[in-house]
Amino acid sequence: MNVAVIGLGLIGGSLLRALAAHGHRVAGHDMSRQTREEARSLARAAELPPTADPGTRTIPIKGDWRVAETIPEAVAGTELVVLAVPLPAIPGVLAELAGYPGLITDVTSVKGPVRDLLRGRRFVGGHPMAGKESSGFLASDPHLFDGCAWVLCLEEDGTDLADWLALARLYTALGTRVVPVTAAAHDRTVAEISHVPHLLAAALSTVLAGNPLAGTLAAGSFRDGTRVAGTRPELIAAMCGGNAPAVGDVLAGIVAELQSYGRELAAPDPVAALTERLRTPSDLRRAWPAAPGETAEMTAEPEALLALGRAGGWVTAVRDDKVSTMRPGSGRNGS
Amino acid sequence: MNVAVIGLGLIGGSLLRALAAHGHRVAGHDMSRQTREEARSLARAAELPPTADPGTRTIPIKGDWRVAETIPEAVAGTELVVLAVPLPAIPGVLAELAGYPGLITDVTSVKGPVRDLLRGRRFVGGHPMAGKESSGFLASDPHLFDGCAWVLCLEEDGTDLADWLALARLYTALGTRVVPVTAAAHDRTVAEISHVPHLLAAALSTVLAGNPLAGTLAAGSFRDGTRVAGTRPELIAAMCGGNAPAVGDVLAGIVAELQSYGRELAAPDPVAALTERLRTPSDLRRAWPAAPGETAEMTAEPEALLALGRAGGWVTAVRDDKVSTMRPGSGRNGS
Repeated sequence: MNVAVIGLGLIGGSLLRALAAHGHRVAGHDMSRQTREEARSLARAAELPPTADPGTRTIPIKGDWRVAETIPEAVAGTELVVLAVPLPAIPGVLAELAGYPGLITDVTSVKGPVRDLLRGRRFVGGHPMAGKESSGFLASDPHLFDGCAWVLCLEEDGTDLADWLALARLYTALGTRVVPVTAAAHDRTVAEISHVPHLLAAALSTVLAGNPLAGTLAAGSFRDGTRVAGTRPELIAAMCGGNAPAVGDVLAGIVAELQSYGRELAAPDPVAALTERLRTPSDLRRAWPAAPGETAEMTAEPEALLALGRAGGWVTAVRDDKVSTMRPGSGRNGS
Repeated sequence: MNVAVIGLGLIGGSLLRALAAHGHRVAGHDMSRQTREEARSLARAAELPPTADPGTRTIPIKGDWRVAETIPEAVAGTELVVLAVPLPAIPGVLAELAGYPGLITDVTSVKGPVRDLLRGRRFVGGHPMAGKESSGFLASDPHLFDGCAWVLCLEEDGTDLADWLALARLYTALGTRVVPVTAAAHDRTVAEISHVPHLLAAALSTVLAGNPLAGTLAAGSFRDGTRVAGTRPELIAAMCGGNAPAVGDVLAGIVAELQSYGRELAAPDPVAALTERLRTPSDLRRAWPAAPGETAEMTAEPEALLALGRAGGWVTAVRDDKVSTMRPGSGRNGS
């Protein structure tokens, strides 16, 4: 495909490089001149013959991307634009895409607000469940998405199935697992598995305040439980604040669960009461992540795809109007 | 020293082996015949000349421990008994130590209840901040305690300073950092950095219930935030239930913190409000763990030792009535 990526941070930069490595024609743009220079330098470097590298790169990194000075220059002649900018920057980019006839997608971590901004446009929302602690083009990695779940939103009304399948074909070919869900289901679920976990980590970190002994005695369970709390507060706040209704709702559920533990602690036999209460969470965690389960071929059809996503399944390949799918198994896979 | 270890699970077994490796005379006992056999087999195996092992063992593992069939047989002739049994088993062991003239210590993760059980005995409570997911003698490791914080309780009334120093000398020589604290300060702090983190992990795991999509999209922040939730519910319940007042109190504080995040999420500008709220937790987490700070020599004296512990400091060595100490620095060390 002929693709433009707008925004060349960690995700946009990695996607630019992954698409180029898979032989697509790619153009990139970033509002930062420095980032554009970095992306251009790497494209030139990648044109050189590969050096003997005993590392893990198995896909040759091709240098066939161009970096454009403006958005119109980047998107000219492309069939697809990927918006890889933060949510607040999307309206500005859209203004520059007023007459763009191709398909638009995005990679932001909240999907309801983007769906609303793009209403009436030829758009399919996306979100790759990949990342790392560092950010910026220099942290980008063409293998960042290998094996990751890539949400592609499918609304019962308003999503063109052919567009959805074109993106699913593109992303599954990069080695990702494409998950069909509605924007609402996505936003609720990422509140559960990403946004609220950041708030729990932050709350737990407050035990360090005014108690140096806590910092000295803290070990594994504290380290794991607070790891993501060191993320810049602006980033956690943007993520949670951009998904405030779902995050607030999920957080209230977790608080209620914790309060129930508090009641068990005050029971006449707290050990017996807590043991019963904790059995389900322990079973749930020990069964996660699920081992790969059933595979199937099916005709692509919105309702069936959404049922697949609700069941935790994903698309592994697209051929014409048929998709190959996989569902989670009942056993457990890894840690 | 001449030491008996009662209970040869992960902690007791590791201590038996660490003490033997450091040249102490050690006897062990476990109520399980199978565990006694395992401990005996390993003692015999360790008497063999070491094989060429390219592994990480730097201390030769000596075989000079004996495994006794009964508690009286184990403790005969020793100066120190280490109770390495679960809290509910302590009264039974104590009944068998009725006339024991030596020093008694323990390794249980809650110190107030043990202090109360041992009142009137020659006792110093202890708790090594070390562990791993597996349990039992076969999981034991003489290097389990390398560099770990080892709490030794010091009550303003009731702890004999000479006994405290004898244990501090023994444990610092094993390469641990001995932290002097009261049982009450210990129990409050482990609620913060270990017990409540297990409850947060459990609560977060409940998002998997009835939403297979969550299991498919969950990645790093969920994995870290829930890692310890897979612990057997009986163990989490025993740990938290044995320290119920402190755990309940700390949990209530965490719930209040989370509720304050919920209020910020409902603010007119949730992103700005949350950014301000999350700055302190983020700063606290990024400053942890602290780099090593100031070292000092001091005369061992209960009030000064407790002040050291409250400040997050620890004892690194004991010589006569002098101790070498270290305090946490202001910079950060590692992740």
